[in-house]
Amino acid sequence: MEKKKTTIILFSGDYDKAMAAYIIANGAAAYDHEVTIFHTFWGLNALRKDENIEVKKGFMEKMFAKMMPRGADKMGLSKMHFAGMGPKMIKDVMKKHNAVPLPQLIEMAQEQDIKLVACTMTMDLLGLKEVELLDNIEYAGVAAYLADAEDGNVNLFI
Amino acid sequence: MEKKKTTIILFSGDYDKAMAAYIIANGAAAYDHEVTIFHTFWGLNALRKDENIEVKKGFMEKMFAKMMPRGADKMGLSKMHFAGMGPKMIKDVMKKHNAVPLPQLIEMAQEQDIKLVACTMTMDLLGLKEVELLDNIEYAGVAAYLADAEDGNVNLFI
Amino acid sequence: MEKKKTTIILFSGDYDKAMAAYIIANGAAAYDHEVTIFHTFWGLNALRKDENIEVKKGFMEKMFAKMMPRGADKMGLSKMHFAGMGPKMIKDVMKKHNAVPLPQLIEMAQEQDIKLVACTMTMDLLGLKEVELLDNIEYAGVAAYLADAEDGNVNLFI
Repeated sequence: MEKKKTTIILFSGDYDKAMAAYIIANGAAAYDHEVTIFHTFWGLNALRKDENIEVKKGFMEKMFAKMMPRGADKMGLSKMHFAGMGPKMIKDVMKKHNAVPLPQLIEMAQEQDIKLVACTMTMDLLGLKEVELLDNIEYAGVAAYLADAEDGNVNLFI
Repeated sequence: MEKKKTTIILFSGDYDKAMAAYIIANGAAAYDHEVTIFHTFWGLNALRKDENIEVKKGFMEKMFAKMMPRGADKMGLSKMHFAGMGPKMIKDVMKKHNAVPLPQLIEMAQEQDIKLVACTMTMDLLGLKEVELLDNIEYAGVAAYLADAEDGNVNLFI
Repeated sequence: MEKKKTTIILFSGDYDKAMAAYIIANGAAAYDHEVTIFHTFWGLNALRKDENIEVKKGFMEKMFAKMMPRGADKMGLSKMHFAGMGPKMIKDVMKKHNAVPLPQLIEMAQEQDIKLVACTMTMDLLGLKEVELLDNIEYAGVAAYLADAEDGNVNLFI
């Protein structure tokens, strides 16, 4: 029997939405789906390394790099910022309830062979370079996304 | 012939997005789809009862309970808040055009046997208890979602 | 062989999300999918003509018309507004990288026979008239959406 397929576009750069994406992805992989997360626009931030990587960039690319969160742990919430209290609150309750934080969900995804893809077109737009992103991810465009999604069972845009 | 299936994840706590979810869901049920709405994160607020329910909670759970809207009617808009004018404007034009408000769309969904599911993992995170949510809903996690979605025709993340 | 189908609901009125929708749609059409973009709520703004169209409207409809962006080029970003700097920055980097701006992506979509649909129910709510929207689009409701989506391969809510 052919494997079921889950293909998620992660467009959002919000911590909570990325968590939802990775929880569904890890769940689907546990149920033996072939899973891809295609990171585009602000969703690319989930794949950024948290250290500062020196890369030669133009002015606007430097601005984007400065303004965007460096890695999953630094991402904000889609709701309830309350002067930054929101993300801290969520992380506190997550710790209290032994929920898995986003950086570990991403590690789990890599261990479960979930295909993590960075959208090259938006990397280019936002001035992100391969060295700034996590190791062992793939680089592709909309054609590769469609090839995965068109035979998919669960297709989501998050 | 097997029934078609529509499975919606309602992640958003915005009035307008929840309206879209429930309009699609009610439409799909009218066309004889088997429909599930899986409420997670801020989408759980659509299922809150509007009265205050006394529940023993920790400090952070109380904070969340206070900050989050109590029930569908209290939810804000994803766009055009304008100091709270937006939701009132939308509700006014809805009344004028005889559009069905969200709380009634949820009632219709229950009458049409749409399966309303509350995500237990995020209930736990946000400190929401079963007594605070509407009657006649189901409680489940990502595994149940995937079981519904993997054979689905229309799968959406809202 | 039957054509594959991509059906996208564009709910969002954000420039970046609309770009994502139209890039996926144009990609899918290039791979010979039958593609529909169903514009609802704030997504309708992508279909507005950029000139001012004189239409008799009630007070609230005039307010909405004033507050909502007139056409794709005027839409804001979902993230990184920074006092309006965000959209300008994105458009500057897009120009620099020869990326196709949203209004041209919409033209491409029409040339590729992508079906652009305006949701009549939300047009009514927001007080938008057919003369205010682009030519050669279709007008329909949730039933038409479901008819397209239920046999679809890629169904997204953006």
